[in-house]
Amino acid sequence: MTIQAFPKNDLHKIETGTLDVPPRLLLGPGPSNAHPRVLQAIGMRQLSHLDPAFIKIMNETQELLRYTWQTDNELTLAISGTGSAAMETAVANVVTPGDVVLVGVMGYFGERLVEMASRHGADVRIIEKEWGDVFEPGEIYAAVEENQPAVVMLVHAETSTGALQPLEDIGDICREFDCLLLVDCVTSLGAAPLYMDNWKIDIAYSCSQKGLSCPPGASPLTVGSRALEQISKRYVKTDTWYLDLNLLKSYWLGDTRAYHHTMSSNMTYALREGLRLVAEEGVENRWARHREMAELFWAGLADIGLSCHVANPELRIPSLTTVRVPEGVDAKAVAGRLLNEYNIEIAGGFSKLSGQVWRVGLMGYNSRPENIMLLLAAFKEILGR
Amino acid sequence: MTIQAFPKNDLHKIETGTLDVPPRLLLGPGPSNAHPRVLQAIGMRQLSHLDPAFIKIMNETQELLRYTWQTDNELTLAISGTGSAAMETAVANVVTPGDVVLVGVMGYFGERLVEMASRHGADVRIIEKEWGDVFEPGEIYAAVEENQPAVVMLVHAETSTGALQPLEDIGDICREFDCLLLVDCVTSLGAAPLYMDNWKIDIAYSCSQKGLSCPPGASPLTVGSRALEQISKRYVKTDTWYLDLNLLKSYWLGDTRAYHHTMSSNMTYALREGLRLVAEEGVENRWARHREMAELFWAGLADIGLSCHVANPELRIPSLTTVRVPEGVDAKAVAGRLLNEYNIEIAGGFSKLSGQVWRVGLMGYNSRPENIMLLLAAFKEILGR
Repeated sequence: MTIQAFPKNDLHKIETGTLDVPPRLLLGPGPSNAHPRVLQAIGMRQLSHLDPAFIKIMNETQELLRYTWQTDNELTLAISGTGSAAMETAVANVVTPGDVVLVGVMGYFGERLVEMASRHGADVRIIEKEWGDVFEPGEIYAAVEENQPAVVMLVHAETSTGALQPLEDIGDICREFDCLLLVDCVTSLGAAPLYMDNWKIDIAYSCSQKGLSCPPGASPLTVGSRALEQISKRYVKTDTWYLDLNLLKSYWLGDTRAYHHTMSSNMTYALREGLRLVAEEGVENRWARHREMAELFWAGLADIGLSCHVANPELRIPSLTTVRVPEGVDAKAVAGRLLNEYNIEIAGGFSKLSGQVWRVGLMGYNSRPENIMLLLAAFKEILGR
Repeated sequence: MTIQAFPKNDLHKIETGTLDVPPRLLLGPGPSNAHPRVLQAIGMRQLSHLDPAFIKIMNETQELLRYTWQTDNELTLAISGTGSAAMETAVANVVTPGDVVLVGVMGYFGERLVEMASRHGADVRIIEKEWGDVFEPGEIYAAVEENQPAVVMLVHAETSTGALQPLEDIGDICREFDCLLLVDCVTSLGAAPLYMDNWKIDIAYSCSQKGLSCPPGASPLTVGSRALEQISKRYVKTDTWYLDLNLLKSYWLGDTRAYHHTMSSNMTYALREGLRLVAEEGVENRWARHREMAELFWAGLADIGLSCHVANPELRIPSLTTVRVPEGVDAKAVAGRLLNEYNIEIAGGFSKLSGQVWRVGLMGYNSRPENIMLLLAAFKEILGR
């Protein structure tokens, strides 16, 4: 058989060089640099998504995820996509069209929860805070009492503002009013204290490229029994097939793993290795290290006359600091110089905080004294302090 | 500050060993083994999703994707998920609730198109074929004329049956009736002749782990101008935020790349390397190699008295052969022995072809004579032929 002769198109057959990239130190809001063991694991030869040898690796990954989340939730898995995919999985599965959903908005990721919940048919009610502030339990209580939502959605670590929402008391409020508690842990998992079960969180999601220091692409999600029960008895299927937890459950749990999609062995190798590093360190020690490094960084900022956007240190995310841009300084130009002259990536603020803050991540493997020392030295040089 | 003292949960802090996996030869319906250069690229140090150095890599990847698809489509990108995510992206973006959609079902992946289109609100009309058969242009013409759909959805290479749907004449039919043509190319891209532009396909998607021999997780999608226009002027947003092409477009195209999600540099490195290998070989040469290897395999099957499920060789997928299981042979036991004794993965049939066929993939890097020789020798030994 000859290949059918159509006019071939070589316009886009470009010449490219061997892959090479600058050696960036990733101190923005994520990704963080992966631990070298993670980058070694990701290149291991492949297994298929249904190979018994791979199922064993999935099972180990699930156990280590449970440990990292501090949960016994059976349905603890990794979504084949980035943290935004895990976010949409959580939202799309707990929302049925017409449900009242209460979203706490204190930054961009709360706004995104509003957007996603709306797309999946929720009747969204919003409570808002200034960007950098957090909610008091009493405020949430009052809003839940008033709106009687089916789901309360909160962001634990608001990456756009640097504020860490205390969660200890919210689970009890949601139980009292018989609604689910969904929490965005994209920036907190593996970096800030997080007790899924003790805090009575019903469904939570995260990503792989921040506190866990893996490449993005396999994103942790955990579902408690109250949420799972609601998901199992939905009267309509969720609109997304790829992110349907009733289908994913049959692939991730039980003895017969039902084919759903082609889970990436390589991404799973990477996540497993990142989680092994969490277990080796001990998750509480990891939280403590992030906090200790954050305090070191905050002290160093003060030394060069820079301040944090979130005034109260108890409400700052230990892995992501929003630094106030001094009067008259071009935030973008400074970030550009850090990248181009020092190979250090930090991010600017955006939306309501555009031009007002830099966002500095000290996440996972990158949360180390030498990185803090280098960044402070570079800041000092660029800002002339 | 001390970390709050909650009772810690070490139940799931399991002991795990250093990553090690059996050296499988992946001759199932995907994943195929990645080329060693791809596995080397995927472990390269990371870049963030907005780093100018990464944008350059994205741009190169897009160009090489255009070449591989044989298209000039500007909106040619990789979805951050597996082929199923790219499939849902295509479906969710071209369907608006209430649209009549005509799906050609000749196997499992056609059924999945029906399921996805239904979830996204389509009024789905179905034409069906036996599993292993394909549609004649006249049959599609009649169904389009009768149903007047907004979108026609077809599967190019039906992985569940081994049949390759000829597409040359379908684009003209869809233009005549002013509807879009969506094509599933998950198993054909990089393996079977495919002319996106010449065949007037409006939107098509694929995966990275078959013909392109990369790990799964960055899945090719290309959108022509007719589809893009429809997507741009939707009267309701698509229900999925993560897979919304109007948002993804702003991240993948233009001078200011708007943050959407955290695209994985490592997955992109891998895809770029896989596509460089396509360009080095020449896409037509790659198609010809797949066809040549398939013919070698089919001849070898005949030599040991095995036959193909798709009778007409012109209608067989060059990268995925369905082999009839001889009377009295336990298909699952044979596949199990291949895996456990020879480290060779092939797959069984499922649903309507359960127990009746084996599915053998000779995809991308794996489409080589020595793999065929080994598999045939193992078949011969196990079947005693």
